[in-house]
This record gives sequence, structure tokens and C-alpha cells, in this order.
Amino acid sequence: MSARWTVGVDFGGTSVKAGLVDASGRVVATASFSTDEAARPAAFVERTSRAVESLARQAGVRPGQLRGVGIGAPGPVDVERGLVYSLMNVPGWRNVALARACERCLACRCFVDNDVNLMALGEWRFGAGRGAEQLVCLTLGTGVGGGLILNGALCRGASGAGGELGHMVIDPRGSRCGCGRRGCLEAHVGTAEILRKGRRLARRASTQLRASMRRSGGRLTPQLLSQAAQHGDAGARRLWQEIGQALGIGLANVVNLLNPDRMVIGGGIANAWRWFAPTMRQVVRDEAIDISARSVRIVRARLGNRAGIVGAAALVWDRTR
Amino acid sequence: MSARWTVGVDFGGTSVKAGLVDASGRVVATASFSTDEAARPAAFVERTSRAVESLARQAGVRPGQLRGVGIGAPGPVDVERGLVYSLMNVPGWRNVALARACERCLACRCFVDNDVNLMALGEWRFGAGRGAEQLVCLTLGTGVGGGLILNGALCRGASGAGGELGHMVIDPRGSRCGCGRRGCLEAHVGTAEILRKGRRLARRASTQLRASMRRSGGRLTPQLLSQAAQHGDAGARRLWQEIGQALGIGLANVVNLLNPDRMVIGGGIANAWRWFAPTMRQVVRDEAIDISARSVRIVRARLGNRAGIVGAAALVWDRTR
Repeated sequence: MSARWTVGVDFGGTSVKAGLVDASGRVVATASFSTDEAARPAAFVERTSRAVESLARQAGVRPGQLRGVGIGAPGPVDVERGLVYSLMNVPGWRNVALARACERCLACRCFVDNDVNLMALGEWRFGAGRGAEQLVCLTLGTGVGGGLILNGALCRGASGAGGELGHMVIDPRGSRCGCGRRGCLEAHVGTAEILRKGRRLARRASTQLRASMRRSGGRLTPQLLSQAAQHGDAGARRLWQEIGQALGIGLANVVNLLNPDRMVIGGGIANAWRWFAPTMRQVVRDEAIDISARSVRIVRARLGNRAGIVGAAALVWDRTR
Repeated sequence: MSARWTVGVDFGGTSVKAGLVDASGRVVATASFSTDEAARPAAFVERTSRAVESLARQAGVRPGQLRGVGIGAPGPVDVERGLVYSLMNVPGWRNVALARACERCLACRCFVDNDVNLMALGEWRFGAGRGAEQLVCLTLGTGVGGGLILNGALCRGASGAGGELGHMVIDPRGSRCGCGRRGCLEAHVGTAEILRKGRRLARRASTQLRASMRRSGGRLTPQLLSQAAQHGDAGARRLWQEIGQALGIGLANVVNLLNPDRMVIGGGIANAWRWFAPTMRQVVRDEAIDISARSVRIVRARLGNRAGIVGAAALVWDRTR
């Protein structure tokens, strides 16, 4: 297998993005279409195939000359069989043999995995996790998810749910989580909780935050909360420190359990890195077992909004070694 | 490599036990000596070598004809270099190249690993973990430790501290742990905490327990607490249910994080299995993510007090594949 070009496909809730990726993980061309246009499996396969053909043409090759096509899907996947069990937020997908359908259409090798696993695989091969042997990836946003690469392999677990960091309980008397339990990491550091704390702050304390909310039409976003911290708002800074505190408690448990050499943190909330990371790192240093706390470096993800495409490309490399 | 015999050595705090182990993990002969006799590295190597020679003779082979000798040491180990960094409870061991020293003495291949890792490896190859692909082992006693086998390999972590289940925080406002933190699993289910709860029970409620303590010279043991539960003592039964509850919360986090297909629980406290396991399993069912809770079987370790010897033998098989 000498082909150096791959296409990575990021199946998102609003758009599907495909990218032509070279052997160093650089995205050299992209194509995208709306998820609505491809909400059903057959349409997805057809639209994706056309995007892959167009991207391959830009590399001067036929799809069959690509190393392969990787697809990251937002839901549980059987990687060995290339099967999508179901998708979050996209009805009509039940046990779809997606890899085979794409292979038939494109005459090149196709692979599917869960999108959060692929973020981990992408950061490991091409991003901030490069060279790590025991890597934990965490993605922070509306959902809090994760992926584990241990002994040089992605740990998908027995049923593809490995790395579900978001539903680790960090405080049995803590906030109620969307999953019904109390005190999950996601309930403490997910976007919903950050905004809930932020709205309370705007109501009670921060006139500055209220003013910037008014300027953006009354809507609060994590970005506004970062800006408030940037402008010296003490309440906003404290809010991000609380997020760092909760993250640190969760990560210390993971550090104790897995003794990783690196942790990579991405997702939209990671944009507030400057405001939560110092507290988070301090809590890990204080709370994890010394030998494990000393072994780990906690860094910010590097692939940003290309993580989905690059991760899907990394899957191709992983499966065609 | 066709040799089928191994010798496993279990370096304990009070005695060193060596066993001749066949290819199915059966211990067919044993030898042991007091740890005091071998507190220093040179004496340990000498005494161990003599024991190995005597066991090999019983199999009708020279040590050089063994598949190898495995040694489980109670402390951090560099497996690749066969180096013991230090030992719990045995002073005078600092960066000892134990594998090489034994190899020189015995003219056969020798391997060293941490004893808790070896319990996991032994249960995986020869015990209750056989056939599992994603295995979590937990050992319950004065210390609470663990070992992880993921994707078919022991996860030692970046510095050999992988699988440290005992210091996962299950309740940040919980009991104080020997490590200085609050709410570690070990602080909730370790022998010290079980006995503390048991003594309180004997003082306040259980005349039956007081009577059986008097019969055993005033000493309380986990075994007496199991017997009390067996005899219908409601307080003792509740005590074990509380242990099961705390274990379940800890294991649910591990199930969410790693999505294992099996968990094996051993160590002295596992003798009270009947009294804590139903609650523990129920809590895992209730608290873990459904897909992961359904994938996992939680079973009792099978190797009992042979775990150390058989685990050390499993290490030889693992390193000579």
C-alpha cells in the first residue's frame, strides 16, 4: 500500500465536510454539503462519493488510487464491520453497512468509526498527541466525550463505548446530568452548565457581562464568558476556575487509573483554555498520585475544526498499516 | 520456544513463594522461604535460584530448560529492563536489576513485574478473566489495587502505575484515605475501613459480633464480619451492602471509561463476595451507561492464594510469545 492521499469525512449534525488529506495530516482541499441533503443513507453515500471523486481529482488520482476514505459518524459504530448502529440527531439510520456501501460506489477502501474516537486518533497521529504512548483525549462542548489510545491502539471497549469520560461521576451529590445521574463530569463542565453559571453571574454580579450580552442580542455564549474574563471580570474568571477545578478532579481520576503520558483537550470550550487550564493542571498535580501526576503533560488539542476530517484520515492510516 | 514449564515467584511481605506451573496454569509443586531470609537482593537471588532449581528438578528438567521464571514484586517495576525501583515494606531495594541477576544465576530467562499487574495477567490467562478482551481486575484487601488488560495487552501506563483503582475518588467529601486525599475507593472499601465500621457495629449494635470477637481473643477480622452476616446479623449485612455500594460507584466509573467485557475481583475481602456482590452489581447496572453496563460481567477471581505464583508464570508466557 503506497498511496499517500486519503479523504476524511466528518459527518456533523448540520453539515458533512470532506477533506483531501496528505500523508502528514495536512488538509489540502475540502468539500461540504448540508446534512439535510444526506439525511438518508443512500443519499449520504451518493453525495459523499461525489465529494470524494471531486477531491481525488484535485490530487490528480482516481478514488481507487486513494489510500482510502475514512468517515467519522456521530454515534455508536462497529468498526470491524463498518456498521453504523445509529446516529445522534439523525433519524433513519439503523444498522447501516456504511463502509461497504461507500466501497461499492467508489471502488476504494472505506472505514467508519465514532467521531470522538477519531478526534483522539487524529490528535495522536497528526496533532497534539503525536509521540504519546498512553494518550487520553477529552472533547469539551455540549457533550463531553473522550477517546483513549493505550499501548499504541485506540481503546474502543467491548461495545464501542470506551473513553466515555463525560459520564464519570466526580461528585455523587453534584449537579444533575442529562443522562439522569448526578455529578457526571458533563454535568459540571458541559456547555449547558457553563451557560447556566454564566447567566446567574450576569443576573447577580456582572454588569459588564450583561452589557455584552445586550450587544449580542441577549444571547450568552462561552465566547462572551471568555471575553469577560479577558476584560478582567472577576466573576467570569472565577467561573472558569470552577470549571478548571471540576475538570481537574475528573482528570486526576483518569490519571490515577491509566497513568497516561499525555492528555489532549479539545472541543469548543477549549477556546477558554487560558482561563480554566491553570486551575485544572494544579488540581491534577494536587489530587493525582505523585508518580502519575509527574508523568503526564496536559495540552490543548491542535487540530481545531479540522479534527473531524483529519481524524477520519488517521483512521485510514490506522486500518491500512 | 517449546518449553512448557515455568516457575512463578510471589515476593510477599512475609514469605516468598515459588511454584512450578504447567502450560495450563496448574501449580504442580511449591517451595517457599521467609522474606526475612532474603531481605537483601543478593540473598533473594540466591534463595530464589535454589528454589527454582529444586522445582525444575521435580519436572525432570534443568533451569535452562524452563520456559522462564517470572517474579512478582510488591512495588514499582520497569518490566522492559527487569528493574525493581523499590519495594513496599522491604527496605534496601533501590533500582535492583533483578531479572538480570537471576538470569546470571540460573541460566534461564527471568522476568519481573509488579504483583498487582501479575494478578490481572494471571486471571486473564489462566483464571476468571480467560477469553476477555477488555478486562479490569481489582484486588481488595488492606490496599485496593488493580490491573487493566485492554486490546489484549496489560496497560502498565507511562510509569508503571496504570490500573491504580484504589485511589480513584468516588466522593470528594468522603472518608480520609491513607494517601492524604478524601474519598478514594481504598478509603471506602479497604480492610481498615471495613474493620472500623465493624468495630463501631460491635460496640453499638451487634451483641453476636461482640461474642464472636471475644471467642477470637477480642480481634475483629473481615472473616468474623462475613460469619456474622452468615448468621443473620442485620448490621453486618448492612455493612457489606455499604461496601458493595461504594464498590459499585467506583466500578461504574471504570465501566463508563473503559467499557470492559469483564471485571474480576480478588483479594482477601473477595471472600465476602456473597454479602457485597449483589449490591455492587446492582449499583453498576443503575449507574453505568446502559450500553456499557450491559456489556460487562463482574465475577470473582478464581486463582485465590495461587494468584501470585500463577500470575508470575503468566508473565513468562506473555513475554515469550
